[in-house]
Amino acid sequence: MAWNSNLRWRLPLACLLLQVAMVVLFGVFVRYDPDADAHWWTEKTRRNISSDLENEFYYRYPSFQDVHVMVFVGFGFLMTFLQRYGFSAVGFNFLLAAFGIQWALLVQGWLHHVEDRHISLGIENLINADFCVASVCVAFGAVLGKVSPVQLLIMTFFQVTLFSVNEFILLQLLEVKDAGGSMTIHTFGAYFGLTVTRILYRRNLEQTKERQSSAYHSDLFAMIGTLFLWMYWPSFNSAISYHGDSQHRAAINTYCSLAACVLTSVAMSSALHKKGKLDMVHIQNATLAGGVAVGTAAEMMLMPYGALIVGFFCGIISTLGFVYLTPFLESRLQIQDTCGIHNLHGIPGILGAIVGAVTAACASPEVYGQEGLAHSFDFQGFKKDWTTRRQGKFQVFGLLVSLAMALMGGIIVGLILRLPFWGQAADENCFDDAVYWEIPQEKSTVYIPEDPTLKPGVHSAPLVPVLSTVSSIPVVASAMPLVP
Amino acid sequence: MAWNSNLRWRLPLACLLLQVAMVVLFGVFVRYDPDADAHWWTEKTRRNISSDLENEFYYRYPSFQDVHVMVFVGFGFLMTFLQRYGFSAVGFNFLLAAFGIQWALLVQGWLHHVEDRHISLGIENLINADFCVASVCVAFGAVLGKVSPVQLLIMTFFQVTLFSVNEFILLQLLEVKDAGGSMTIHTFGAYFGLTVTRILYRRNLEQTKERQSSAYHSDLFAMIGTLFLWMYWPSFNSAISYHGDSQHRAAINTYCSLAACVLTSVAMSSALHKKGKLDMVHIQNATLAGGVAVGTAAEMMLMPYGALIVGFFCGIISTLGFVYLTPFLESRLQIQDTCGIHNLHGIPGILGAIVGAVTAACASPEVYGQEGLAHSFDFQGFKKDWTTRRQGKFQVFGLLVSLAMALMGGIIVGLILRLPFWGQAADENCFDDAVYWEIPQEKSTVYIPEDPTLKPGVHSAPLVPVLSTVSSIPVVASAMPLVP
Amino acid sequence: MAWNSNLRWRLPLACLLLQVAMVVLFGVFVRYDPDADAHWWTEKTRRNISSDLENEFYYRYPSFQDVHVMVFVGFGFLMTFLQRYGFSAVGFNFLLAAFGIQWALLVQGWLHHVEDRHISLGIENLINADFCVASVCVAFGAVLGKVSPVQLLIMTFFQVTLFSVNEFILLQLLEVKDAGGSMTIHTFGAYFGLTVTRILYRRNLEQTKERQSSAYHSDLFAMIGTLFLWMYWPSFNSAISYHGDSQHRAAINTYCSLAACVLTSVAMSSALHKKGKLDMVHIQNATLAGGVAVGTAAEMMLMPYGALIVGFFCGIISTLGFVYLTPFLESRLQIQDTCGIHNLHGIPGILGAIVGAVTAACASPEVYGQEGLAHSFDFQGFKKDWTTRRQGKFQVFGLLVSLAMALMGGIIVGLILRLPFWGQAADENCFDDAVYWEIPQEKSTVYIPEDPTLKPGVHSAPLVPVLSTVSSIPVVASAMPLVP
Repeated sequence: MAWNSNLRWRLPLACLLLQVAMVVLFGVFVRYDPDADAHWWTEKTRRNISSDLENEFYYRYPSFQDVHVMVFVGFGFLMTFLQRYGFSAVGFNFLLAAFGIQWALLVQGWLHHVEDRHISLGIENLINADFCVASVCVAFGAVLGKVSPVQLLIMTFFQVTLFSVNEFILLQLLEVKDAGGSMTIHTFGAYFGLTVTRILYRRNLEQTKERQSSAYHSDLFAMIGTLFLWMYWPSFNSAISYHGDSQHRAAINTYCSLAACVLTSVAMSSALHKKGKLDMVHIQNATLAGGVAVGTAAEMMLMPYGALIVGFFCGIISTLGFVYLTPFLESRLQIQDTCGIHNLHGIPGILGAIVGAVTAACASPEVYGQEGLAHSFDFQGFKKDWTTRRQGKFQVFGLLVSLAMALMGGIIVGLILRLPFWGQAADENCFDDAVYWEIPQEKSTVYIPEDPTLKPGVHSAPLVPVLSTVSSIPVVASAMPLVP
Repeated sequence: MAWNSNLRWRLPLACLLLQVAMVVLFGVFVRYDPDADAHWWTEKTRRNISSDLENEFYYRYPSFQDVHVMVFVGFGFLMTFLQRYGFSAVGFNFLLAAFGIQWALLVQGWLHHVEDRHISLGIENLINADFCVASVCVAFGAVLGKVSPVQLLIMTFFQVTLFSVNEFILLQLLEVKDAGGSMTIHTFGAYFGLTVTRILYRRNLEQTKERQSSAYHSDLFAMIGTLFLWMYWPSFNSAISYHGDSQHRAAINTYCSLAACVLTSVAMSSALHKKGKLDMVHIQNATLAGGVAVGTAAEMMLMPYGALIVGFFCGIISTLGFVYLTPFLESRLQIQDTCGIHNLHGIPGILGAIVGAVTAACASPEVYGQEGLAHSFDFQGFKKDWTTRRQGKFQVFGLLVSLAMALMGGIIVGLILRLPFWGQAADENCFDDAVYWEIPQEKSTVYIPEDPTLKPGVHSAPLVPVLSTVSSIPVVASAMPLVP
Repeated sequence: MAWNSNLRWRLPLACLLLQVAMVVLFGVFVRYDPDADAHWWTEKTRRNISSDLENEFYYRYPSFQDVHVMVFVGFGFLMTFLQRYGFSAVGFNFLLAAFGIQWALLVQGWLHHVEDRHISLGIENLINADFCVASVCVAFGAVLGKVSPVQLLIMTFFQVTLFSVNEFILLQLLEVKDAGGSMTIHTFGAYFGLTVTRILYRRNLEQTKERQSSAYHSDLFAMIGTLFLWMYWPSFNSAISYHGDSQHRAAINTYCSLAACVLTSVAMSSALHKKGKLDMVHIQNATLAGGVAVGTAAEMMLMPYGALIVGFFCGIISTLGFVYLTPFLESRLQIQDTCGIHNLHGIPGILGAIVGAVTAACASPEVYGQEGLAHSFDFQGFKKDWTTRRQGKFQVFGLLVSLAMALMGGIIVGLILRLPFWGQAADENCFDDAVYWEIPQEKSTVYIPEDPTLKPGVHSAPLVPVLSTVSSIPVVASAMPLVP
């Protein structure tokens, strides 16, 4: 298909319209949280607090910054592994996240934080907005290289909305616990993205096979993303847990799970290669599956060995997924999953939801203490009579709802994105920065010594070296016709 | 001009002399703050504190580390966008910042923190020193590629001094509020740097046009800088605000402004390209303008939508600046602004000062609460009778003083740096790491298959491939003479 | 020697066995610390605390995350400087650290944190595990490029054990203070690694000389590592100091020492080059020596100028070491120290131990206050009668024990690693990612214009450009035979 990928009016219009809408809606709806308002002085008196440290800011700000790094540097650089798509990976992730956090503040605010018809904005909202956008970044991984920034903005708009509704159903209606978002963020994000990419199926993507692989330096850039995701994941899973032991425990469990996951990912990567060599794709991705799968249970009394076991199996399953499942999905189910998010977020997300449900159902007053159990699962107010089994059951409902929302939402959004006027690239131009970016013309003069096989005398200036121009990025070079 | 750019004695001498001076001055003047001194035990009793958490360290350390990352990784990598100047960008930034923070601790200490003839050193001093150096990093952006490290050390010495004096005038004498340093850091740094680069004008810089552009990977390295600046800017603007709501609010406002700025930068970048393509220069720089412009007002009750509006316009203005103003400044005013700091720090800095002045002037007891207003603007002691209008007026004076100091200081320092013996590079060697760095000799053997158009038989070994040596970095290659 | 470097069964088996062992041992031994347990509610009552902020988590989590970044991104990227060994540098560091932290939690737990036959796991354990692994990362720097991942896992297993024993002797038996680990981490890690590399001496490493050098972009990747180490080192040295002034002071001292170190490193780097040019190796490494050397004394009343002096000399000594000592060690003592850890961790570590001993011996009640002195050096309980001189003496014993343990341990582990079946690479394949990694095949078509010296008419199609294939990474290219 010959689409017009010139974004000159479409992208600016989309950005400006959305941003103007944000300004207006923020003006109408958004105010500061009491902890961030100049009335903090009266608030302190009201809550009988003497120290400024009790401001929510000091409990959560370090975690917030870590989560922020994960969304922008973590996801952004993780996706730079493609040899010619680094600008788009980092740049479009930047764009969609910057829009997504604003829209998420609004939608999540309307659903969770309305007081006196106003959304009250504090550090917790910022973290939740980053969480919401993380699920969009996950979905972006599935469609990476095949969509235009306009499509991404549209996808972000709808996905953030659906995410918030789904989150509302889970956390408020089903009373599900999901601190690290195994269900709300990863499962939802992954299956949403996979559905969208299924609907946007491109038959002739074979011709860009080369550009779908990595290059030496692009793999190193991607490792920056991997490591920041891996290192800060304990902050991610603990960022919105209850103060004190919950945050502390969530960080420890995530740390353990991630560590175990690295060893089994490496083991499988080597075992599945005929010469025992490691594959960067697995190191970049499967090592993170442990963080996804411990998301729901991180703040529960999973015990350190429980976390290790979760990480252990996730590393194995995720690597197996990259080797066997991704090719299968593409060839049989026509699901082109660029980053393999099914292996990093999809399956581990479902596993995480199940682990969470089981851990919740098995919670006992011996392990938590009577007070701790009530506090951890909010067994108070109308939930006073809930048993842990019931909590477990509702956790499973939460998973099913998330999957249903992801599939339904993905179909609708996929169909919208299939409309032919969003500036998407033609099949042969996928995975190429040059479609949407002004690419630096890298020309280096290369010294090519005289061909020793050419006898002097055959041509006039035998000792004069030849200078040619080499473009050291493939982008420009490959665009040239091959002359026989 | 044929300057001698061999730094063998000049650079070591400059570094060692400055460092010895630092040691001596620290020995004479610098002691620990009570919060960092082993007498903290008595201090706790004196201040009637029971918890160690009330140590200033816990209020500010996370923000400090984020600011530290912005200065060294943020600014350092942001400037690696030039294709052959990455070592110098990161390395010289490292050098000047390491010297600058020491000198700033002293000068700022003398002006602000002297007790008993000693400077008392605590976490707040470290943050302020980083702030001061940030303004030098801004100025470095204007002269990037055209000055020697010796010149940078001299510039740092003078700029840190002037910065501290200017800051003293603003904060202590004019009682100006400037939490994120729109005036003290960005406006001052930018116009100081622009004045210096004007005086160091190089007529023949055209010949290095190629090296003044980026390369594919250098643009990705620069994005590391951009993203860490963008992500940690909320910490920057909130790092030295008052405890509690002020820090909290400053972080939220900055977060909002930056998010809006990304969308409008992208919009303008696309709209201004004839094929609607995005330009990395805008994504790397204009997206940050929102953080600069919200610097002064960040801790005030700007309201989230106010922050969005600031970011909205800054993204537009900054991108327009890169497209239209920077070429104009260079061709007409002979201001060669390598990184376009005028668009990222200059104009947004001035805007930020004005936004701050207006926000201060419009502050009312309804919005802040009586106590909050007095606390936020220090309307106590001799300022007890100040009105917010008066505060606003003084904010404007602060801007004017900063501009005047920057211009005057820039002229003097520029003239000093013009002296011909600081090891500066010749015009044709600007923007080239090879002048000051030992560059790795990267040689890769390139396989060049037989020219198929050459008939076999014309030369002896027609099927033998030719091997040539290609240097994959332009630095070495371009140094070779072009043979016709 | 022709070793078999195919890891297909060895690496997966090693990883899986170790990980299964970890799961089992964690199951038997590891439980949550009271601050991370759901019984925190009763703990709060027991300790008479009202605020959740008194949970150890809030004192140490930000520092922990910084240390985590140093271990994984800092050390990992610092070692990517080799032109063809980036995957292994980052990837193997990731693997060994992920295993090491689990094993360290166990061994350190058994020695320090056993209560009721269980190890209680909290944030401090995580930091200490990261510390322990940092010493393995140091040793990895010595053997980088010459060992297989299986060897690294074995080395990690033994080194973590020895580290923990050594740490136990120093901190528990000798009552030594070593907040930043000058002795336990750096001296021990460096001399352990140097001994191992001595025993693994490879006679024919000359042939890989080219691959032992850096490339332009690999040096920039390494700077990411350097800067994150440099910036977060204050967190490293203060992470496990006592609450309040000790943490605060440790951060300040480290900040000062590191700043001074940058200037003297740059000075020496330039002074030792015949054209005064800077060497990236020195900027990447020697600038960090100040953080190592201030490790022991960081939390003491070293005074800011004392820290500057330490940094001053370390920058000089470390750079001199790179220029003169490393070649000497290789040629005379057959110690092949890939990253020059002797200059960055060895000598500065010893210096740091001595500085710490002297600072402790000179501590006086005038400087610390009576209460501060007792608190800082734990002069209570059975240590009530200790003098500071005695403390100083024990600090020196600590250094000697660390050196002895490192040498003995290094010999034993080196001999184990010399066994021929661990999958190590042949001498000619050292420093090459291609041995253990699936490397992306980077092929770019290069446009080579017609040789102007060839007269038209000599061959049939004179204006047709020739296209050849260039592999832009040396890895692939150099594997091709050189044709005369």
